[in-house]
Amino acid sequence: MGIDPGIATLGFGILEAEKDTVPKLLEFGVIQTPKNTPMGDRLKTIYDDMHTLLTEWQPQIVGMEKLFFYRMGNLISVAQARGVVLLTLSQHGIQPEEFSPPQIKQALTGYGRADKAEVQEAVARELNLEKIPKPDDAADAIAVAYTCYLFNTLGNFG
Amino acid sequence: MGIDPGIATLGFGILEAEKDTVPKLLEFGVIQTPKNTPMGDRLKTIYDDMHTLLTEWQPQIVGMEKLFFYRMGNLISVAQARGVVLLTLSQHGIQPEEFSPPQIKQALTGYGRADKAEVQEAVARELNLEKIPKPDDAADAIAVAYTCYLFNTLGNFG
Repeated sequence: MGIDPGIATLGFGILEAEKDTVPKLLEFGVIQTPKNTPMGDRLKTIYDDMHTLLTEWQPQIVGMEKLFFYRMGNLISVAQARGVVLLTLSQHGIQPEEFSPPQIKQALTGYGRADKAEVQEAVARELNLEKIPKPDDAADAIAVAYTCYLFNTLGNFG
Repeated sequence: MGIDPGIATLGFGILEAEKDTVPKLLEFGVIQTPKNTPMGDRLKTIYDDMHTLLTEWQPQIVGMEKLFFYRMGNLISVAQARGVVLLTLSQHGIQPEEFSPPQIKQALTGYGRADKAEVQEAVARELNLEKIPKPDDAADAIAVAYTCYLFNTLGNFG
């Protein structure tokens, strides 16, 4: 499972990986919380929906995008959402692996500074998808899931 | 109830307020999480302990310290802890009131740039305490609780 944490939109993607085959994209989507509601209620939505997802899919390995400082604008909100995600994972006995945006780009395209479109095209290509998954946050989460898959099958690639 | 959110140490203080009397300090303390454990487990400790406190004390009004940007070092960790606190409050039907450090200082000492010692002395004085509550995070939380009390009884003091 890959997670792209956020407060307004949290992306997730579920891959099924077997030895020597291309991982299969089982499910992807977003958890959305309405802007004009109290922060606590938005976090409660994330908490409840994360539990539903974790209970339904029982992921063995979870990858999360690392927080980078350049997203300062809503850094606090994103970190608060991230805290709730980490809590739900802990409640399911999961300790996530974290990947920075450059690691994810490197894993998908072989180039740490690839742009968003290049990464999304690589996701579609590597997973044999007919089109790029939408919305962006879900595609980003699938990229994290795929990075996590590579990391666990091929070892640390830097 | 006043809360000073943090990841290693979260302070709390419980005041009982009745009309025309000095609020009574019922309880104060800290939730601590060990440094060398996974973030998710630390957040789970905060989640569980917050639920215990909220169930035990059933606070009617909760005040929290606002996050200020100058604590950049561990801003993400603190925000993650804060997200979990906001979640537990929401699960108990509570929407907290937030106060900035200058608001708290102003409320306690009449001076928005008072130093930590002045604020802590004011807490002890205003609540008729024999000594300054320890540790600091608990004293800070009591300061938030008292600010919240003033705010709700005297109205907005700017």
